[in-house]
Amino acid sequence: MTEYTAPIDDIKFLINNVLNSKELYDLPAFGSISEDLSNAVLDEAAKFASEKLSPINREGDKIGCTVISGEITTPPGFKEAYQEFVANGWNSVPFSPEHGGQGLPWLISTAISEMWSSANMAFGLCPLLTQGAVELLSSHGSDEQKEKYLGKLVSGEWTGTMCLTESQAGSDVGAIKTQAKKNGDHYLIKGQKIFITYGDHNYTDNIIHMVLARTPNAPKGTKGISLFIVPKILENGEKNDMRAISIEHKLGIHASPTCVLAFGDNEGATGYLVGEENMGLKYMFTMMNNARLGVGVEGVAISENSYQKALEFAQERQQMGRPISEFPDVQRMLLTIKAQTEAMRALSYYIAKSMDLAKHTDDEATKKQHQTIVNLLIPVLKSHATDIGVDMSSMALQVFGGVGYVEETGIAQNLRDSRIAPIYEGTNGIQAMDLVMRKITQENALAALSFDIQKICLGGNYNDEMLDAFSKLDGATKYLIELTRQDPEKAQFIAAYYLRMFGVIMGAAMMAACSKALVNDKSDYTKTKKESIAFYMNYILPEIDYLTRVMV
Amino acid sequence: MTEYTAPIDDIKFLINNVLNSKELYDLPAFGSISEDLSNAVLDEAAKFASEKLSPINREGDKIGCTVISGEITTPPGFKEAYQEFVANGWNSVPFSPEHGGQGLPWLISTAISEMWSSANMAFGLCPLLTQGAVELLSSHGSDEQKEKYLGKLVSGEWTGTMCLTESQAGSDVGAIKTQAKKNGDHYLIKGQKIFITYGDHNYTDNIIHMVLARTPNAPKGTKGISLFIVPKILENGEKNDMRAISIEHKLGIHASPTCVLAFGDNEGATGYLVGEENMGLKYMFTMMNNARLGVGVEGVAISENSYQKALEFAQERQQMGRPISEFPDVQRMLLTIKAQTEAMRALSYYIAKSMDLAKHTDDEATKKQHQTIVNLLIPVLKSHATDIGVDMSSMALQVFGGVGYVEETGIAQNLRDSRIAPIYEGTNGIQAMDLVMRKITQENALAALSFDIQKICLGGNYNDEMLDAFSKLDGATKYLIELTRQDPEKAQFIAAYYLRMFGVIMGAAMMAACSKALVNDKSDYTKTKKESIAFYMNYILPEIDYLTRVMV
Repeated sequence: MTEYTAPIDDIKFLINNVLNSKELYDLPAFGSISEDLSNAVLDEAAKFASEKLSPINREGDKIGCTVISGEITTPPGFKEAYQEFVANGWNSVPFSPEHGGQGLPWLISTAISEMWSSANMAFGLCPLLTQGAVELLSSHGSDEQKEKYLGKLVSGEWTGTMCLTESQAGSDVGAIKTQAKKNGDHYLIKGQKIFITYGDHNYTDNIIHMVLARTPNAPKGTKGISLFIVPKILENGEKNDMRAISIEHKLGIHASPTCVLAFGDNEGATGYLVGEENMGLKYMFTMMNNARLGVGVEGVAISENSYQKALEFAQERQQMGRPISEFPDVQRMLLTIKAQTEAMRALSYYIAKSMDLAKHTDDEATKKQHQTIVNLLIPVLKSHATDIGVDMSSMALQVFGGVGYVEETGIAQNLRDSRIAPIYEGTNGIQAMDLVMRKITQENALAALSFDIQKICLGGNYNDEMLDAFSKLDGATKYLIELTRQDPEKAQFIAAYYLRMFGVIMGAAMMAACSKALVNDKSDYTKTKKESIAFYMNYILPEIDYLTRVMV
Repeated sequence: MTEYTAPIDDIKFLINNVLNSKELYDLPAFGSISEDLSNAVLDEAAKFASEKLSPINREGDKIGCTVISGEITTPPGFKEAYQEFVANGWNSVPFSPEHGGQGLPWLISTAISEMWSSANMAFGLCPLLTQGAVELLSSHGSDEQKEKYLGKLVSGEWTGTMCLTESQAGSDVGAIKTQAKKNGDHYLIKGQKIFITYGDHNYTDNIIHMVLARTPNAPKGTKGISLFIVPKILENGEKNDMRAISIEHKLGIHASPTCVLAFGDNEGATGYLVGEENMGLKYMFTMMNNARLGVGVEGVAISENSYQKALEFAQERQQMGRPISEFPDVQRMLLTIKAQTEAMRALSYYIAKSMDLAKHTDDEATKKQHQTIVNLLIPVLKSHATDIGVDMSSMALQVFGGVGYVEETGIAQNLRDSRIAPIYEGTNGIQAMDLVMRKITQENALAALSFDIQKICLGGNYNDEMLDAFSKLDGATKYLIELTRQDPEKAQFIAAYYLRMFGVIMGAAMMAACSKALVNDKSDYTKTKKESIAFYMNYILPEIDYLTRVMV
């Protein structure tokens, strides 16, 4: 197989044409950014992804990580690739210039992180986790903490982790038991955390862990959780009282070390309180949207990679005297993967742009509107795009036939890698609960979204289809809001169907927006884009009729 | 996790009540079989599956097979389990007493083979392949060949393989290049076969390979293929000129050695022609229905195993102070898996009984009717049940959350194991072509099926739903038949949607038949069965509205 090639035409078309990136560059926050600059950065990222990250992806899966007497080994080439990644400034792309970041809009950095995950999902997780730590500290750290940690986390000289899960506390974060006891200017942390992504590794000299724990006498449940900074190496150069006990033997993302971390085998690991005690979970929520966007984008990313592999194979593999890409059933599969991937890519960029607007416009009403849109769409994207990541990787494997079931092709790895995304950062079931029990009941949430998205998707070729779809979504939403009051158990039972309906319609809205923005040229890009748009409208969107029917 | 437990209540209910097994026992061919006897055999099989096959399944996956200087090693316990399997007579269950078999109807042996695959899919493949060889030789072998091979294949003292695929010849069987040259009373075979399931192993002293090859000057394509018996060990005790070059590194079914076999490194492997030259593919087709039923049943089997694992986990795992099985979204997932599994189980048994009737009634019209039903439903079951096997294993993994992504739970293995079934024995795409381009155009095919299946599924609680569904299936079928003439490319493009619609409706028909046959008692079985039937009707069947809409 040849290496992953970033779908740069689609990415630029979405950013610059469909989503009108200029609107962002007109804001003071992005005054120094232009379309030309963004395009140049995207081109460079595409190059780095295909030349540096994609070539080590297969070996990373085959060799994986090992832990020998507490020391983690990562697969060949990963440490070097990370160091080059940092040296080239890629780690700092999404962050504010205030802390040494490059200050690019989310719209651009989301496209770039898609490329990292598409080329090498296990690698891409590392900057994604650091990003979470940067956001937490930027929002809630003291000036001293920002001074100490942000610079090196932004540059990537150090990496960050999120230490939430314990064996008894998965979706039920309130059940965590890790203890934190005040000891002068710091706390002593004792407890065990599981499923810690990049919990330990050899890429950098230090790792900054963001750890949820309870202080003595803290209130029970979610209201008694505090957030601590626990560095692997202390300021005095000594190792903190913590270690990686083991790494998980996972179905996929083998090159990403997922650790069981023990804090405080001896006197207790040194931790520094972020903000106030008992506010930890609230702080975590400030980075939740960004993290969930990142995971949704992983769904897009793995689906794109699977599409490229399946297309290449289908064009090369000859059966009955012609490439199998000419067989109608194979064409159906390829079109399905292409259309689903493109729709979710567009949706993730749309959300990213809304994040930029929510943060950087100076009009309060616009800010609020876009924050509402982001809150509403994040669970939809996280869940639907990651389900699609799995389903499309599985379909791509089917295109390969028997050879796909053999690990050497790499497509089996995609299926294995993709399967984590519906689980972590809040399972897709949790997303459905969030959408139905919280997000749709936000004041005028659906109206805010419809108003904004209809501007770009109505008035084109698929006007009637979209009007019909929005009307169904509106009906289903009103029904669900009522149901959450009358029969919350039933509302939760059908939440996943509702979320899927929402996702399918948002995908269609984005494809309709693409159709509207397409220039009538004869390029290959335009031609194949029209095909995938038409396929989405004719073969994917109609699923909402089924989903509507089962909900009532 | 506890071991797999055969769903014996559902199995007996389907066989004895829904499908009225007595109708078979009244036939002369099954004169010595009774419901009591069948039940006793089913109970014993259930015991063997859970006590002998299930306990070695995880280790089989972890350790897998190795080939060291041409010798295959299988995982610990597999050889011993196979020998006990044979000693207990399990290998001979489906075969005719004429050749030493136990002469049980397909209806019973299908349920039993579901148990083998459910407990240990990699193990279950071995008897499945031997079964193919037995059927080929029973139908097309000379008396001498039957005498020589059938006894030991039926008992399981030897195993059989099917050697079709070559690297350039997958779905395109006509492209095979392996050569067979006459040499006195036998042929000399030269060529390389890939993806040969149990192509070599250490369970038995000999393996009888059924090999497709071309004689010199044979017609091109599918009309020039002959079938040969190629024993691993010749009658004089010498090794034949063939060897396992390597085993595939597969996504799943690791305990089943999938080999690349080289025939004729030296003078040529000794092979014996079955029947006439150039008739090989025609012979293969005589066992295709049974083999494809077997693979469809694997879909049911892995889905059942995944259900059991997910249910057990959900009942034990506590979050927010209660087992997660009480959360509505988890209940939705568990009900989906249960309903889909039960529907496809019933459909596979329905087909098995039709096979029995097609073979053993003395009324020619009944025979013909049931053969038509079997031909029509085999691609539907093979494809739909195996897709469901993958989707339900993935959904079961989702019930586990993070723990499911870790290999130690076994649910990740299920997803990996399940993924082969949509591929082998004719990819699901090939099944869709078979259904649309050949099977539905058989004379009165759908009418024959409707007439038979409506007898058991209409007149109960779901009469209206089923009348509506059959009418939609009828409409779609007429449309498709017309389309195969007017626009065959389009017919092939939508074939997969049509097949899925067919599968969903057949599942519903079987669930409606179950509803009709349920006694109104208060047993746990009846209670939960009613729930899964209602779930199928309300949440799964409505998908046909979507599928209908995209086809036109």
